[in-house]
Amino acid sequence: MIKVTQIEKSKISTIDFDNLSFGTVFSDHMMVCDYKNGQWQQAEIKPYEPFTFDPSASVFHYGQALFEGMKAYKGENNEVFLFRPDQNIKRFNKSSERMAIPEFPEDLFLEGLNQLLRLDADWIPQGEGQSLYVRPFVIATEPCIQANPSKEYRFAIICSPVSSYFSGAVKVKIEDHYSRATPGGFGYAKAAGNYGGQFYPTELAKAEGFHQIIWTDAVSHEYIEEAGTMNVFVRIGDTLITNPTSDTILDGVTRKSLIQLAKDLKIPLEVRPIAISELIEASAKGELLELFGAGTAAVISLIETFNYKGQNYQVENDANSYAQQLKKALTDIQLNRAEDQHQWRYKVQ
Amino acid sequence: MIKVTQIEKSKISTIDFDNLSFGTVFSDHMMVCDYKNGQWQQAEIKPYEPFTFDPSASVFHYGQALFEGMKAYKGENNEVFLFRPDQNIKRFNKSSERMAIPEFPEDLFLEGLNQLLRLDADWIPQGEGQSLYVRPFVIATEPCIQANPSKEYRFAIICSPVSSYFSGAVKVKIEDHYSRATPGGFGYAKAAGNYGGQFYPTELAKAEGFHQIIWTDAVSHEYIEEAGTMNVFVRIGDTLITNPTSDTILDGVTRKSLIQLAKDLKIPLEVRPIAISELIEASAKGELLELFGAGTAAVISLIETFNYKGQNYQVENDANSYAQQLKKALTDIQLNRAEDQHQWRYKVQ
Repeated sequence: MIKVTQIEKSKISTIDFDNLSFGTVFSDHMMVCDYKNGQWQQAEIKPYEPFTFDPSASVFHYGQALFEGMKAYKGENNEVFLFRPDQNIKRFNKSSERMAIPEFPEDLFLEGLNQLLRLDADWIPQGEGQSLYVRPFVIATEPCIQANPSKEYRFAIICSPVSSYFSGAVKVKIEDHYSRATPGGFGYAKAAGNYGGQFYPTELAKAEGFHQIIWTDAVSHEYIEEAGTMNVFVRIGDTLITNPTSDTILDGVTRKSLIQLAKDLKIPLEVRPIAISELIEASAKGELLELFGAGTAAVISLIETFNYKGQNYQVENDANSYAQQLKKALTDIQLNRAEDQHQWRYKVQ
Repeated sequence: MIKVTQIEKSKISTIDFDNLSFGTVFSDHMMVCDYKNGQWQQAEIKPYEPFTFDPSASVFHYGQALFEGMKAYKGENNEVFLFRPDQNIKRFNKSSERMAIPEFPEDLFLEGLNQLLRLDADWIPQGEGQSLYVRPFVIATEPCIQANPSKEYRFAIICSPVSSYFSGAVKVKIEDHYSRATPGGFGYAKAAGNYGGQFYPTELAKAEGFHQIIWTDAVSHEYIEEAGTMNVFVRIGDTLITNPTSDTILDGVTRKSLIQLAKDLKIPLEVRPIAISELIEASAKGELLELFGAGTAAVISLIETFNYKGQNYQVENDANSYAQQLKKALTDIQLNRAEDQHQWRYKVQ
């Protein structure tokens, strides 16, 4: 049973839904559940409000923190849908294991999502590309600066309404010096430290005129890995290729859904390592027809140019693209506009 | 100019200085300075109190956070000393650069240390192995969950009195699967994410009966790197050896001080990569005379056994050890009991 305390007056009328900046506006309520004395305490849904922690709280010092990213969609009849929430919940707990954080009960997680989204349903914008971004996270809160796993944690879910995400074609740098993750590390976890560590190399790339980095393997820097917030797909000739996940690569829900949809659409698909040399060769032959990132925030983000060791390479970006077909197939399922043969759509109740 | 607000009544009389648990008790005051609108704001020294941040504060999601660890010592005449604070301040800003956090002004940092330690001088325990642990740190505080560098930060210094650290000989596991850091990553930074990522593998090692892990290089796992909170030294025959630092290894202040002291003491010293095979061979020949970690918390921590791929190897731990000579030389300087030819001791004023 989740304890629910509703706000007295919604702040929704103060929000300009036509000019939303991603991740800066939050809905009326949040879910909070603290862990102490070896167990998760009473879960609460309550008004969105600041957190107060001791300056010695572990999260400020040792980075035991991780999150998930999901979206809630509003369909034609004001029904509210999530997309494969079971996958996010499982990944949350997989990340938790690697970060030595106690797992959160799956049923309580899902119940919290349901209750919170029902309560803040008015905050879910309706329309193409609009959604309520749902951010579950957990942080270490014990007031102690011993370099050991915290004995106290806070789990929370906050929600932020988002407009259609910018989806212009981007220029990326294939990184050959800095690394995002190491074999035997925690790159596969949606851990806070994986993001903070990317900012500096990404800012350097931005200063050179790129939008993003595609990370490469830390050992040889010869194979592409992921784009930091997205997995990567490439089309060479008629074949769509994505690299396998590993302990250095996030197991993206959008990625695995696109793999299934490509099979459904009978798109020739290969899941195998992708060498940078292969991209360069395909580009030279005019066979590099598509390159795109796939993730919850942008769904699919087209890449028009990649740079490797100072050299730019063009992507053809075919008008009748796999990216378009896949994005339509995916969003039609998410928005309840298409049959859902894989039971990915989850109706909030 | 730092704005100073003193507590009304010290809580020092409530503290049991004979039973201190590391990092759980904090002194009366702290230093705080916030960064916003592109600059560091008014620095303050004020009563130790909780921090309040929005649930969307960047540190909770993307791990832009880092710290330093220093100790303040009280000498015979109640003089207060720090040890090479310039080194910690420089490393703090080197870590900041890698984590895309604005650097903190060096002079303000040092001035803050001086004023804070003067004000809380009563909190510095006097006696062998006792000190006030000083923890400067910086965290990302912008209320925004875009995966970009935060535009707001909080710098703070908190202080925790510590007793003599447990210094019994420990058993360590040389890790051959998990990795702490990757070339091109941020292992050399004292970033929060480097610690949270170590906890799970370390807990696994503890469950096998070890106290700590010695990390190995992420590429081959054939060379030792560091112990997570300590650098590593080994004595084979008459030679003391430590591995060079790199972008995967913290450039420890204790490590570099011991290197200098070894030279002063005419101990044969080599700074070069150390292969695990070399340790095993030396142990088999009875030539592995010492193995120890070096860091601010424990100064020197003796290792009596190391385990590699399930096999235990003994360290002789010579009674007339380099470790003892070096620890005495270092702490004599720290506590103002010996001449300070390298000007490492810094008198708080």
